[in-house]
Amino acid sequence: MSSKAPWITYRPELKVLDCTIRDGGLVNDSNFTDDEVKAVYEACVEAGVDYMEIGYKNTEQAFPRKHYGPWRHCHEEDIRRVVGDHDPDQTGLKLAVMIDAGGKSDWKTCLLPKAQSAISLIRVACYANQISEAAEMLDHAHRLGYETSLNIMAISTVKEVEIDQVLEIARGTPAQVVVVVDSNGALYREQVDHLVTKYRKALEGAGKEVGMHAHNNLQLAFANTIEAIILGCNRVDATMLGLGRGAGNCHTELLLGFLRNPKFKLRPLLKCIQERILPMKQKLDWGPSIPYNITGFLNAHPRDAMAFRDGATPDDYVTFYDQMVLDA
Amino acid sequence: MSSKAPWITYRPELKVLDCTIRDGGLVNDSNFTDDEVKAVYEACVEAGVDYMEIGYKNTEQAFPRKHYGPWRHCHEEDIRRVVGDHDPDQTGLKLAVMIDAGGKSDWKTCLLPKAQSAISLIRVACYANQISEAAEMLDHAHRLGYETSLNIMAISTVKEVEIDQVLEIARGTPAQVVVVVDSNGALYREQVDHLVTKYRKALEGAGKEVGMHAHNNLQLAFANTIEAIILGCNRVDATMLGLGRGAGNCHTELLLGFLRNPKFKLRPLLKCIQERILPMKQKLDWGPSIPYNITGFLNAHPRDAMAFRDGATPDDYVTFYDQMVLDA
Repeated sequence: MSSKAPWITYRPELKVLDCTIRDGGLVNDSNFTDDEVKAVYEACVEAGVDYMEIGYKNTEQAFPRKHYGPWRHCHEEDIRRVVGDHDPDQTGLKLAVMIDAGGKSDWKTCLLPKAQSAISLIRVACYANQISEAAEMLDHAHRLGYETSLNIMAISTVKEVEIDQVLEIARGTPAQVVVVVDSNGALYREQVDHLVTKYRKALEGAGKEVGMHAHNNLQLAFANTIEAIILGCNRVDATMLGLGRGAGNCHTELLLGFLRNPKFKLRPLLKCIQERILPMKQKLDWGPSIPYNITGFLNAHPRDAMAFRDGATPDDYVTFYDQMVLDA
Repeated sequence: MSSKAPWITYRPELKVLDCTIRDGGLVNDSNFTDDEVKAVYEACVEAGVDYMEIGYKNTEQAFPRKHYGPWRHCHEEDIRRVVGDHDPDQTGLKLAVMIDAGGKSDWKTCLLPKAQSAISLIRVACYANQISEAAEMLDHAHRLGYETSLNIMAISTVKEVEIDQVLEIARGTPAQVVVVVDSNGALYREQVDHLVTKYRKALEGAGKEVGMHAHNNLQLAFANTIEAIILGCNRVDATMLGLGRGAGNCHTELLLGFLRNPKFKLRPLLKCIQERILPMKQKLDWGPSIPYNITGFLNAHPRDAMAFRDGATPDDYVTFYDQMVLDA
């Protein structure tokens, strides 16, 4: 990268993962229609996105089919119905799914061998205290032939010494990527620097990339993703129109408008957003608003803000502030 | 500032200017009611905001009263009707107005001597090629007894050598503050660094502060303001709920939630936003959206995006993209 005006150059190794269907599934219990998933898939292919995360591999026991859509379980036949005989070499797009530690996923049984699946990448999501299980999950997925990534969630709430411990374990796993996940959307620029630098140092020489997954509670998801890129993160997550729980995510269209790799195309994303994602705004509430700002300031999970936004007075900011700050 | 965790400390010399009424006046032709202006004024006092910019001092000839509200001209009697015998020492709040170069303001005649005015700070706005007139304006306001600030607009479109020239002239003026103004909302983090560092170097030892005025076309207004603060900017502009033309501004409530000076209080701002600013959203369109993203990517004035948002198909993003990018 040139040091004169790096913002007009690019790093070929920087890869974008669109998790519209996976993380957006937390807004609508993964009840996307096949047509919607197909539209996102085709937009990702045309836009030059590197990975599309098509859902969770969670259990039907914990997430029953009568309530949750197929993108919460991602059975191979559901994926195939949408992507057909998807070929990463032809399309330039790899598919990913997320499996959770802590009993949400039957990870020992839910994965086919890579050769029998349309999926290329398994992303393992865990909280810091679940790192030992996550390491087993990564081993398992790796043995089945998948690329693997480790997403350590809610990192803004984890103590330094625990992060150091988690990264030491992560270093020994087969994960090719370890992702800084700001679940609370609470990180400011200097904290992103601190974490990304720590991750890079802890994983140095282990052949692993650092990733960034940001939430928009403080309107900083895109900015924090840029910051991570400047610091050398080569894997970044985003969703179309920021679709995601609460304040939502870094917007894929902002990210692709920023990145200068000529393989990325903005227009197909805009078309998909206009035709498919924007209409969802009629039914679903997401994006930054003052209740999410407040949970972000407090480094709190956005669940209280989500409940408040779902209530009778979603814009009674003062009452929510009093509840969260003065009555705390 | 401590280097261990600077994000939880503060710089007492960092001052916040709320320009809700001034910059927000570009959305509604400055047609705020007296009650609205008074509510913003009282919120600024209670929140510990340092400066409130209450409007433009533009001419009635260019901006006739039958179309524009009183906050486009800021006659002393209009200001007094709202703020009474405002006292900066009592309230902790100083009032500011903006005067424009280029014929929009009769700056030679429109200002009272400071001793006869509720105003403390005159902000001179100019484009780079108007810097010579701006220097005269600053001299004039300074001789009348005011604090002065120089806002050089649309800086993302000005060549490096011209910026150097402008800053050399700015250095010789009485302006206590020179503000980086990203009118197009087009600056990314590294460009903010480049400009703020350049301004600081050019003004070093001249007893001047550098300011930041950001727009939200790329959802980066707050992030770029934080970045400027990290780099030593001590004057930052914001508006409540980001009220401002097109994509709007850095949000005052996000800024005060971020700043750790205990004099700043968030609750009065939230109350004013909830009761006064949010209802304006029923009539007025502002805030980031894809057309503003696109003009931001292009480092273009948002006027085409504003016209498009005002048209029959404000969310036909693909057509706007084609118009701006493919048909360009």
